[in-house]
Amino acid sequence: MSNSSETRSVFWSGPASKDGCLRLLDQRELPQKFDFMDCKTVDSVADAIFTMAVRGAPAIGAAGGFGMAIGAFASEAKDNDTLLKDLVSARKILNQARPTAVNLEWATGRIEELATMLSGKGMDACIIRRAVYDEAQALADDDIRINRAIGGFGAAVVPNKANILHHCNTGALATVGHGTAIGVIYSCQEQRKDIHVWVDETRPRLQGARLTAFELMRAKVPMHLIADNAAGHLMYEGKVDVIVFGADRVAANGDVVNKIGTYKIAVCGRENGVPVYACVPTPTIDLGIKTGREIVIENRTSKEVTHIGEECIAPEGCQVYNPAFDVTPYKYLTGIITEEGICYPPFFKSLAEAKITAEKRLRANWEVRVEEYLKR
Amino acid sequence: MSNSSETRSVFWSGPASKDGCLRLLDQRELPQKFDFMDCKTVDSVADAIFTMAVRGAPAIGAAGGFGMAIGAFASEAKDNDTLLKDLVSARKILNQARPTAVNLEWATGRIEELATMLSGKGMDACIIRRAVYDEAQALADDDIRINRAIGGFGAAVVPNKANILHHCNTGALATVGHGTAIGVIYSCQEQRKDIHVWVDETRPRLQGARLTAFELMRAKVPMHLIADNAAGHLMYEGKVDVIVFGADRVAANGDVVNKIGTYKIAVCGRENGVPVYACVPTPTIDLGIKTGREIVIENRTSKEVTHIGEECIAPEGCQVYNPAFDVTPYKYLTGIITEEGICYPPFFKSLAEAKITAEKRLRANWEVRVEEYLKR
Repeated sequence: MSNSSETRSVFWSGPASKDGCLRLLDQRELPQKFDFMDCKTVDSVADAIFTMAVRGAPAIGAAGGFGMAIGAFASEAKDNDTLLKDLVSARKILNQARPTAVNLEWATGRIEELATMLSGKGMDACIIRRAVYDEAQALADDDIRINRAIGGFGAAVVPNKANILHHCNTGALATVGHGTAIGVIYSCQEQRKDIHVWVDETRPRLQGARLTAFELMRAKVPMHLIADNAAGHLMYEGKVDVIVFGADRVAANGDVVNKIGTYKIAVCGRENGVPVYACVPTPTIDLGIKTGREIVIENRTSKEVTHIGEECIAPEGCQVYNPAFDVTPYKYLTGIITEEGICYPPFFKSLAEAKITAEKRLRANWEVRVEEYLKR
Repeated sequence: MSNSSETRSVFWSGPASKDGCLRLLDQRELPQKFDFMDCKTVDSVADAIFTMAVRGAPAIGAAGGFGMAIGAFASEAKDNDTLLKDLVSARKILNQARPTAVNLEWATGRIEELATMLSGKGMDACIIRRAVYDEAQALADDDIRINRAIGGFGAAVVPNKANILHHCNTGALATVGHGTAIGVIYSCQEQRKDIHVWVDETRPRLQGARLTAFELMRAKVPMHLIADNAAGHLMYEGKVDVIVFGADRVAANGDVVNKIGTYKIAVCGRENGVPVYACVPTPTIDLGIKTGREIVIENRTSKEVTHIGEECIAPEGCQVYNPAFDVTPYKYLTGIITEEGICYPPFFKSLAEAKITAEKRLRANWEVRVEEYLKR
C-alpha cells in the first residue's frame, strides 16, 4: 500500500551541511507530472515559494525553515555577527516571496530568534548553524506530529464504511505530510476502516480535481470526483456520512473561513443531519477575532473563473465576482478537530482551551530543544 | 436596448411556402460564435436537433413543428393520402433525432393529428399544407406567450434593485424566445426594474458561463458570473434578494427536478430567508409523479467533469460520479411560477389547478384554430 501519509512533500535531502538541500514536490504541473525539485540556495527556495511550486501554509512554513538552514550553511561567516547578518538577509529574501503567508514569516522569525538567542548565550557559529538546521527539521516534524494528532482524533469519529465528503485540498501536498482533513482520511485508512471519499472538484481553482484526487488515487483511497454542485444531492440521497474540510482561519466563536463553497456544504450537511468537521492545527485559531464577520474575504482575478488553463469558457468581457473564501458560521459545525482533540460547542471555550494547551506544549518543546542546543 | 426577449432563437424565415425555411441560432459554438443557420429540408432539421445546434425542450419542440411544415411544403403529393404518408415519414425522421425529447414527439404528433383530422373532414392538400405551417407557427407563438406570462408573474415578485441569482440556462436560447426563469429577468428589464443578476456558471456543463452570461450580456442586463461555490456566500452576505431557476420535471407535491446544484442553492436560500422560485411552463408539471423521490436521476459521462474542452483537469483514470440533475423538495420553494400564475403551498393543490386551467386554455385555443382551418 502506497500511503501518502508516509511521503513528505517538503523535506531535507542529504547531509545536514551545505551538501544537503531542500527537496520538494513541484505542485505546478500536478496531476499531469509528478516531479521533485531540489533547492540548493536561498534564492531558489524563495523562487519555489513565489512560483507556487510549493503551496499550502504549513508546507510554505517548512520550506522557509529549511531555506534558513540553507542560508546558515551557505554563510562563510566565522563570527556570530556576520552569520546573524547573513541569516537576516536570508529571512528577508524568503519572506518577500509570499508576503501574506503568516506561517512563512513565523517560521523564519522563530529561527532567526533562536540564532540570536544562542549567539547571546555565547555559542559559536558552527553550533548555531547546526541548531538552525535542527530547528527547521523540528518545525517540519512538528507539522507531521500535529497532522497525525488531528488525523487520529478525526478518525475516531468516522464510522466504518463511511462515505466522506471533502472540499479543496488539505492533504500531504498542502502540509509537510499527512495533511489535516485529508490526514483524517489517511488515518482512517491506516486503521483499515473501509472508507470512500467524495472529492469536490473545488471550483474555481480545482484543487480537488487537480490535487486531492491525485493524492487519494496515489494512496489508493477509494474515491469519486464530483462537481461541487453534486455534493448536496449526495447528502439528500443519504450517500454522505461525514464532511471534513480544513480552514484558513478560525474565529474565537468557531466561525470558519475556508475555501469558497465550504458554507454551502456545511449548510446542506446540517440540513441532512450529516456531521460537519473543520480540521485545523491550533495556529489557525485566531482568538483575537471574535466572529467570522470581522474577516475580510479576498477577491481574486476573473480569469480563475473565465478560463481553465488556456480554454476560455465565458463570453469575452464578461464581468466576474470571485471571492476566494467564505465564512461558515459555527452553528453549522459539529466539531473543530485540532491536534489537542475535538473542540465542541460552545467553541469560544473549547477553542481557547485547545489553543492555550497547544501553546504551552509548543513552548515546553522549544525549551527542551534550546536547552539541548546550549549543551552542545 | 437590445433585449433578447425580442429575438427568437427558433423561427420561420421567408414566405409560408417551400421557399421559406427554419432559421435557428446555432448554439454549438456559443459564446465564441453567434451564427444563425437555415434548415431547408426535414433531414437538416433532424440534423440540427441531433447535433444540438438547437437545444432546450421548448426550442426543440418548435424546431420539430417547423420541420413538419418543411415536410408538408416539400411534399409534391396531389392527394391527401400521399401527403399524410409524407408527413408520417417526416415525423419519423424528426423524432429519431432526439428520442428522449418529449416536446419533440408531442409537437410533431400534434401536427400529424391535425393533418389527419383535416383530411378526414375533406379539406384538400393545399389547405392542409398551410394549416400544418400555421400550426407550427402557433406552437412557437404559444411558447413565447407562455414564457411572457411566466415572466410577468415572476417580475411582480422581484423587488426593484433586486440581486437575482440564476442557475443553468433557461433563456431565449433554451426556448423559442424570452425564456422561463430568464424570462422573469427580461420582464423585469422591460418594466425598467433596476436589477442585477448573479450567474451561476453551472458545472459541469457550464451552461451559465457559456449561454446565460452570453444572453444577459447581449441583452445588456447587469450581471456577474460566479463559480457555483460562491452562491451561498453571496446569500450569507445579504447580496441575493431572490433566486430563480427552471425545472426539467415538477412532481405533484411540488418537488422539482432541475440541473444539478439547484438543491444546494434552494437549501441555502431558505436558510438565509431568500425567496426561491422555480419557473416552469405547466407541461413540465407531471401530476402522475407523486414526489421527486420517484424520479430516476440520469448519470452522465465522466468526461464532463474531467475535461473542459480538450483540457484535462483531473488525474488520468480518475473515477467520477456525475448526476445531471437533483431533486429539490418542495419545502425549500417559496413558489412555482407558471403561465397560469404563481403556485404557492400546498403545491399539490395549486399545481393541479394551474395544470387543469392551462390544459383547458390549450384545448380552447386549438379548437378555435381548427374551426378556422375548416372554414378555409
